[in-house]
Amino acid sequence: MTVLLINAWVATVDDSLSQHNPGWVQIDGTTITALGSGAPPMIENAEIIDCGGDIVMPGMVNTHCHMGMSVFRGLAEDVDDRLYRYILPLERAFVTPEMVRIGSALSALEMIEAGVTTVADMYYFETEVGHVVAQAGLRAIVGQTLADFNPPDHASFVEGFARVEELVALFAGHPLVTASIAPHAPYSTGRAVMEQVAQWSDAHPANPVQMHLAESQLEVDWARKTHAQSTVAVTRDAGLLKPNLICAHCLQLEDADIAMMSEHQVCVATNPRSNGKAGRGIAPVEKLRNAGLPVGIGSDGAMSGNTLDLFSQLAPVSMFAKLLGGSRKPLPAVDVVRMATIEGARVLNLNLKTGSLEPGKQADMIRISLASPRLHPIYDPYSMLVFAAGPSDVTDVMVAGRWLKRAGVVQTLDPHQVLRDAMQIAEKFKAEMVRIDGATP
Amino acid sequence: MTVLLINAWVATVDDSLSQHNPGWVQIDGTTITALGSGAPPMIENAEIIDCGGDIVMPGMVNTHCHMGMSVFRGLAEDVDDRLYRYILPLERAFVTPEMVRIGSALSALEMIEAGVTTVADMYYFETEVGHVVAQAGLRAIVGQTLADFNPPDHASFVEGFARVEELVALFAGHPLVTASIAPHAPYSTGRAVMEQVAQWSDAHPANPVQMHLAESQLEVDWARKTHAQSTVAVTRDAGLLKPNLICAHCLQLEDADIAMMSEHQVCVATNPRSNGKAGRGIAPVEKLRNAGLPVGIGSDGAMSGNTLDLFSQLAPVSMFAKLLGGSRKPLPAVDVVRMATIEGARVLNLNLKTGSLEPGKQADMIRISLASPRLHPIYDPYSMLVFAAGPSDVTDVMVAGRWLKRAGVVQTLDPHQVLRDAMQIAEKFKAEMVRIDGATP
Repeated sequence: MTVLLINAWVATVDDSLSQHNPGWVQIDGTTITALGSGAPPMIENAEIIDCGGDIVMPGMVNTHCHMGMSVFRGLAEDVDDRLYRYILPLERAFVTPEMVRIGSALSALEMIEAGVTTVADMYYFETEVGHVVAQAGLRAIVGQTLADFNPPDHASFVEGFARVEELVALFAGHPLVTASIAPHAPYSTGRAVMEQVAQWSDAHPANPVQMHLAESQLEVDWARKTHAQSTVAVTRDAGLLKPNLICAHCLQLEDADIAMMSEHQVCVATNPRSNGKAGRGIAPVEKLRNAGLPVGIGSDGAMSGNTLDLFSQLAPVSMFAKLLGGSRKPLPAVDVVRMATIEGARVLNLNLKTGSLEPGKQADMIRISLASPRLHPIYDPYSMLVFAAGPSDVTDVMVAGRWLKRAGVVQTLDPHQVLRDAMQIAEKFKAEMVRIDGATP
Repeated sequence: MTVLLINAWVATVDDSLSQHNPGWVQIDGTTITALGSGAPPMIENAEIIDCGGDIVMPGMVNTHCHMGMSVFRGLAEDVDDRLYRYILPLERAFVTPEMVRIGSALSALEMIEAGVTTVADMYYFETEVGHVVAQAGLRAIVGQTLADFNPPDHASFVEGFARVEELVALFAGHPLVTASIAPHAPYSTGRAVMEQVAQWSDAHPANPVQMHLAESQLEVDWARKTHAQSTVAVTRDAGLLKPNLICAHCLQLEDADIAMMSEHQVCVATNPRSNGKAGRGIAPVEKLRNAGLPVGIGSDGAMSGNTLDLFSQLAPVSMFAKLLGGSRKPLPAVDVVRMATIEGARVLNLNLKTGSLEPGKQADMIRISLASPRLHPIYDPYSMLVFAAGPSDVTDVMVAGRWLKRAGVVQTLDPHQVLRDAMQIAEKFKAEMVRIDGATP
């Protein structure tokens, strides 16, 4: 069956930033087979969809997320010691396969609503996340986290690696879901285990590695104190700096660290709202990109960044780069759109499949309504997307030729059930928060 | 006629931050007459509106805007010399009463859609802005700009003052629209004319003064070079630092400037997205508030900040303060909501009329749908409003008891006509941009 989108403003985000307006896109099965300007081809029995001048563009790629955590969204906002006071106790008490399933479903629903078609996730009980994204129809990297702080799903690294193996076996050959190994961070994994992860990774080249890197002063201090070098250097010496490493955050970097990362061709996921809200600083995105590193955009978990769409992140990515550079010029809007699509796909090593609209690529695309007055006039569609559009402007979402959202309605999840489950579990957390606050002098 | 909103999550933003959930609000004519929790009063012939658990809160107060400029939205994005290369030539060639009317209508439409109920504007041909906001039903301060750079509507300050007088006469006694005088900035007005404005203001205590202050390095350098003091000190010596002065931007401030502003009890409008996009720095909002100054939030014009709703500004206001402070603690979400409502009203000297839901105040309120998955769970409604909600979540908007938006539909403007006019005028600008770029070597 052929689907033909016509009368669209097609923003391909290909290498030459081709736009077709009015344009058309032909989809056969899971794949984009043709696209162009002017008169669309005549194809018998094709389903023809008139886009009424709306933008059709690649689906967005969220390069760093903790989907299970959406049930903690906005909890303990503005509190500096929230990690130790609330998050870790709550995670130990409440993170179960069921909680991860419920949180991941809420996250999948939100991302589909907002035009995210690919997500890289790392959390606990990650097989549950894999089941949810597979059902929801999202393209995903699902990473089992490994950490030494007695996390909810493994009491030892041996148990953690066993969970990784289970995840890999479960999604081997899956068309949309790729298993990943996710050492939490250098300080919470330790150099010996990072070496083990590097060896595991050499034996599993198709499974990306995800890790928080250079996120906090605490981590920088740990590396200096324990290894007398930077946290990036520790990671390099463990053998983990490789093209299939997705480094999240990357705030606390010296120029020498960026050079190391560039030499080893790692990939970066920047999380502007999460970092900005924590007051932790601004990632040197321009420097990283100028050093040749692909930088994608991530939402982080909803307890840190609140929303999982990428629209919320686009203006912050741009503003932060301009504030660092002291000028309007750094990171123009078109580069921000690239980061949210094709460059994010490159970060996840999925750029041959997704991230731009080109014949032969998977049909991962979104339609954006231009009905809202806040979107007009449009002198530059990239400026409009970065600084004016929002998640509510996304009307249709397709992944691999399958509609996940159609004419404003999510097709693969039951929104009422998902919301009901999330709100029910939140009541338990509220009670626990009251208990913690009561117990705290 | 009485209107009774029932089954609402009423966030009053009054001094004690009272919430009523489920709660009700009674409106008689233009005024809130009662509100509370539990069973609503029985009132014969009242129109009863069941809010289905949605948030009902004060309408937002946009404390700095150039409504006419929305037809320039996103034009010449990411270009450092845009002011002299594009904006000033375009303004000289195209800013006419018609253009201001069309741009202001687009802005009014966008703000009503997004839950802004009060706006402080400054631009040219400001009587046109006044007519538009009056028709749209917005509460507004409309400021006639005075400047020395040959602006589109006055060749001399004498002509400029004449325009101010015309504006004041036109809106004398208007229930919603207040005329204002708006010296553009210290460097573009000059000390002698600032003194004239101060004298005019003494004679017109009900008409606020709006001015860009300490916005750029250029301005700081001008003050040092011309007057050997800070731009704030120049403004003070001209007699302009007074409680009815609304200072927009306030980026380049020394501690001594903040002390001066505090001593003279001026008001501040911070414009985070506009400032962030220009790479100009972060306003010291915490310091200003700690010095006792009320700080409201502004969108600036759509050529600088792109959108005119306040939701887009809330997370940036918070993130910028946390980045400046290096911690999660500065400017908690509840303070950001205050700034967007009651504190903004105080900046405009309208806090006895609007900015919170309290008996006796004008019925300026908005309803926010909680249907979107990105808004759940809700542990703290202020966190939800600042970090997750967006302009599209606003379903109903009331100003002084009149519905400007009802069940998702704007009542006082014709959206199709407004958009058509704006897109038509944009075509002229596009042609002029091509001409400018062609003429530039």
